[in-house]
Amino acid sequence: MSSRFATVGLMGRESDPQVAQVAGSLVAMLTAAKVTVLADQALGPQLPSIKTVPRPELASKADLIVVVGGDGTLLKAAHAIAARPVPLVGVNLGRLGFLADITPERLQDDMAAMLKGDYTSEERLLLDSCVQRSAGAQDCTPALNDVVVQKSDGGRLIEFETHVDGHFVCAHRADGIVVATPTGSTAYALSGGGPILHPAMDAVLLVPICPHSLGDRPIVVAGGSKIEILLTHGHGGRAQVSWDGQRTESLAVGERVQVKRAERRITFIHPRGYDYYRILRTKLHWGRTKHGSGEPHH
Amino acid sequence: MSSRFATVGLMGRESDPQVAQVAGSLVAMLTAAKVTVLADQALGPQLPSIKTVPRPELASKADLIVVVGGDGTLLKAAHAIAARPVPLVGVNLGRLGFLADITPERLQDDMAAMLKGDYTSEERLLLDSCVQRSAGAQDCTPALNDVVVQKSDGGRLIEFETHVDGHFVCAHRADGIVVATPTGSTAYALSGGGPILHPAMDAVLLVPICPHSLGDRPIVVAGGSKIEILLTHGHGGRAQVSWDGQRTESLAVGERVQVKRAERRITFIHPRGYDYYRILRTKLHWGRTKHGSGEPHH
Amino acid sequence: MSSRFATVGLMGRESDPQVAQVAGSLVAMLTAAKVTVLADQALGPQLPSIKTVPRPELASKADLIVVVGGDGTLLKAAHAIAARPVPLVGVNLGRLGFLADITPERLQDDMAAMLKGDYTSEERLLLDSCVQRSAGAQDCTPALNDVVVQKSDGGRLIEFETHVDGHFVCAHRADGIVVATPTGSTAYALSGGGPILHPAMDAVLLVPICPHSLGDRPIVVAGGSKIEILLTHGHGGRAQVSWDGQRTESLAVGERVQVKRAERRITFIHPRGYDYYRILRTKLHWGRTKHGSGEPHH
Amino acid sequence: MSSRFATVGLMGRESDPQVAQVAGSLVAMLTAAKVTVLADQALGPQLPSIKTVPRPELASKADLIVVVGGDGTLLKAAHAIAARPVPLVGVNLGRLGFLADITPERLQDDMAAMLKGDYTSEERLLLDSCVQRSAGAQDCTPALNDVVVQKSDGGRLIEFETHVDGHFVCAHRADGIVVATPTGSTAYALSGGGPILHPAMDAVLLVPICPHSLGDRPIVVAGGSKIEILLTHGHGGRAQVSWDGQRTESLAVGERVQVKRAERRITFIHPRGYDYYRILRTKLHWGRTKHGSGEPHH
Repeated sequence: MSSRFATVGLMGRESDPQVAQVAGSLVAMLTAAKVTVLADQALGPQLPSIKTVPRPELASKADLIVVVGGDGTLLKAAHAIAARPVPLVGVNLGRLGFLADITPERLQDDMAAMLKGDYTSEERLLLDSCVQRSAGAQDCTPALNDVVVQKSDGGRLIEFETHVDGHFVCAHRADGIVVATPTGSTAYALSGGGPILHPAMDAVLLVPICPHSLGDRPIVVAGGSKIEILLTHGHGGRAQVSWDGQRTESLAVGERVQVKRAERRITFIHPRGYDYYRILRTKLHWGRTKHGSGEPHH
Repeated sequence: MSSRFATVGLMGRESDPQVAQVAGSLVAMLTAAKVTVLADQALGPQLPSIKTVPRPELASKADLIVVVGGDGTLLKAAHAIAARPVPLVGVNLGRLGFLADITPERLQDDMAAMLKGDYTSEERLLLDSCVQRSAGAQDCTPALNDVVVQKSDGGRLIEFETHVDGHFVCAHRADGIVVATPTGSTAYALSGGGPILHPAMDAVLLVPICPHSLGDRPIVVAGGSKIEILLTHGHGGRAQVSWDGQRTESLAVGERVQVKRAERRITFIHPRGYDYYRILRTKLHWGRTKHGSGEPHH
Repeated sequence: MSSRFATVGLMGRESDPQVAQVAGSLVAMLTAAKVTVLADQALGPQLPSIKTVPRPELASKADLIVVVGGDGTLLKAAHAIAARPVPLVGVNLGRLGFLADITPERLQDDMAAMLKGDYTSEERLLLDSCVQRSAGAQDCTPALNDVVVQKSDGGRLIEFETHVDGHFVCAHRADGIVVATPTGSTAYALSGGGPILHPAMDAVLLVPICPHSLGDRPIVVAGGSKIEILLTHGHGGRAQVSWDGQRTESLAVGERVQVKRAERRITFIHPRGYDYYRILRTKLHWGRTKHGSGEPHH
Repeated sequence: MSSRFATVGLMGRESDPQVAQVAGSLVAMLTAAKVTVLADQALGPQLPSIKTVPRPELASKADLIVVVGGDGTLLKAAHAIAARPVPLVGVNLGRLGFLADITPERLQDDMAAMLKGDYTSEERLLLDSCVQRSAGAQDCTPALNDVVVQKSDGGRLIEFETHVDGHFVCAHRADGIVVATPTGSTAYALSGGGPILHPAMDAVLLVPICPHSLGDRPIVVAGGSKIEILLTHGHGGRAQVSWDGQRTESLAVGERVQVKRAERRITFIHPRGYDYYRILRTKLHWGRTKHGSGEPHH
């Protein structure tokens, strides 16, 4: 039986010796299944025996990309291949990830099933986000988790306005704000006190960070909303904006960050039986077990 | 020019003397505009000069219902007319409401404009919620704000499981859980630490109340989700379930509360220029004004 | 060498078969060490071979009381012996407790060391709390964890005022309020969003439960403060008050709950090396381990 | 009758035209009362008619210092005079402050009463905090509100350990941590989710900022505790430490910030009738007014 994916690309956490080990056994298994394997050029030193190509070529030639590392590595891979609709599979080298949900131990069996078409596919919303520079220029970057505007070094709180679909929402005084996708709702936004959004939601989450006003709460808006953040006060007239924690730029008072849902989505492939809530339970220490009564009264 | 609404129904907070006063001037204005006015029979003692009818008749004959009181009164009115798609307008007698956004002072001008068709209309999601009794019976009630399962008198925390679309989500140990519409996100759910959901969102919010586990966070799921709460432990084998704080029933261990989006929606009419975020800013003490710097460093 | 404690009393979770097992081996060890052992009469059916006495007698004759169960059992034991300054030791049958920190496996070794005087002793603050009934009567109960005033069945929020040392603090609209000792700060108060107070602190913590106003935050006051809660509105004119989740009474509008630090303290004995923060880390899932970087960006 | 304070010093927000106005009428009143007035040299351009001296001289010659501006200005003044036990009075030019509680309108009357000895005096705890540099040097600064260790520009979370009195408490992964006095509990710590500590408490508050782990909660420890924060991971090997938001320094991985209660305290003078809780109610939008029932069910 022929494979569902003729060419599999390999990306991974750079300078992690486990990547070579995991990749080695995966390549043997894929080769035996007559699947062509290509690796990210950046992994060349770690995978001397596998054919490596530059990332753009990897993204255009592969039918599936396996990313070995963790959620952070998967996030980087998503950025690298953002323009191409190739699906991603995540292998975690340490702790279970929200996205990287396959263990190295399960990798061969799970991949064999996937090659036969036995898998769960899901699409995740991406954000497109542009800074409107005072000079008139635009500076755009996609984000799978979040776009964050926050104070810069040595500064105290910043002041900024949020606008949604042209409506003024709030003049905030805070350390910053996280504009997150449902995927990003379990990342930085959660630390800031935001809710969890089921990843299939068509929604965007705004979470102010350490707001001065206790009434300044997280807000969830429809996925199609046009969100704008206008910096009105910052230390030395500046703040900073970052995308997925991967890229950070300075932001000047009077400049605006515009965020909207991207037209394209990103596809993740999971082993059949993938259960988002099981991952949540594990990551957030929710116990399934019924508990005894030998507790203080709560 | 003829009125957009031929018959206007009147409901209001019972035993509040202001209702008669507001209603009096409204009736004069509506009568002058050739609009038929009917009042809720329950207001009879307060409005002796207006024709009153039982609520079901009011709901079926009126083209628009004006509710005088506050958000709570509007909530009761929404329950009373739940089966009929007549739009509602809310007049607040005290503080601005999330739903009751017209002041008595503005009522005549706003109503005159509405009669000419000059208004903003919006639909809000309702929940349908049924208790699956151990005996096999069903006990169903709609909710505009929320369905709440919580501990009963003298009890400490209860234990229950949440399931969404057949997937087990979490075994909670908490005082209870709020299943809220976007409308309800600014009511009890907010006090429990939930986010604000824009009222146009097609989404349902689950907020555990005082959960034992600090990782047990609010979750937002798609509006079409089937939510089930199974009581597994309670004081004396019991907990309680309530709908919009209007009706409360006992719930036994082993019984399930099922919640899903209702097929019908409820329509609210607002004066043109209605701005949800302005109401949020007022209710949550968000300041629009830029603040000086004479503050402690945050 | 003679034992530091001539007579050891035994209390435990009733109707738990493990209690007999743990007690059995403990009694053998204590008897060999020439220590007299008495057991709580309520454990009679579980411990047929041990001499049992009524609780007051146990509390007055024992020099040390070993409680087998969990934090809840220890809480009950603390109530039972409240009037006597005998120190307590807690053995947990399941999960590590905040107070019950000895495992059955470690019990014999730890007890042997304790008999030699090798242990850590710590005193915990108790609250004395009285309800001032409308009829003029007083109804007083001590609490090791907390005194909780909260809404009763079928009710929505209650309204109450807090006063500290005669100063009006706040008119609350909430589900209730927890007045907690440092010991209780990791119990119900924590679920309500309160901070952790180191158990040696001379302080009392007030945590409103699901307050309507987002600015209604937990407050910590000095241990010597006189705290008063005046119920001003409740469902059917009532709310409820409970002490350590062990006893619950009804509270009527106009009645006051007065809380102050008790003159006596309660003493807990721990094995040497007892570390409060280690227990916190375990109970709250704080990881000591340094983490890798394969995470989403937060 | 002679004045309680023979010499009054004047400090104020620089470059605020209101300062001259407030100072002008205050000086006239004080001069008439035979009180010597000295002003901070930095205010020279604003107060040409008043004798100005350098700050150290102001602090050593004045028996009372009046600070005109807001809480931030008072904080700066407290730093400037930290070494001298002269009491401070705060006049707020805009919104009521936690510390600057006198309005310009009330200033003359309140000051007249204070000169007669009719006032409330309170002492606030200060923190002494030193950075143990890798090179062995120490860098110490006092703080009235807080000492904050946090991530620096472009960084994601940092990793650090907290130790209290030599006990390891927690390995945190967070944006940072606030170590606050009771005074600082209503400043940045409150935005980070911390409780309010009554200002007379002898306690120190630790509030992690945006912690990765949801169990990583605020902790209150005794005022006499020795607190140590050890930076274990940061962006580019660095984080930053700041004192009262007034001074910020870089912190390298391996360096420690040590915080303890200072031996000296700072004294604030308030008009008689000063009520801390009234200020809290105003600042946090707590309503004293009893509310009607026209609310959504919570």
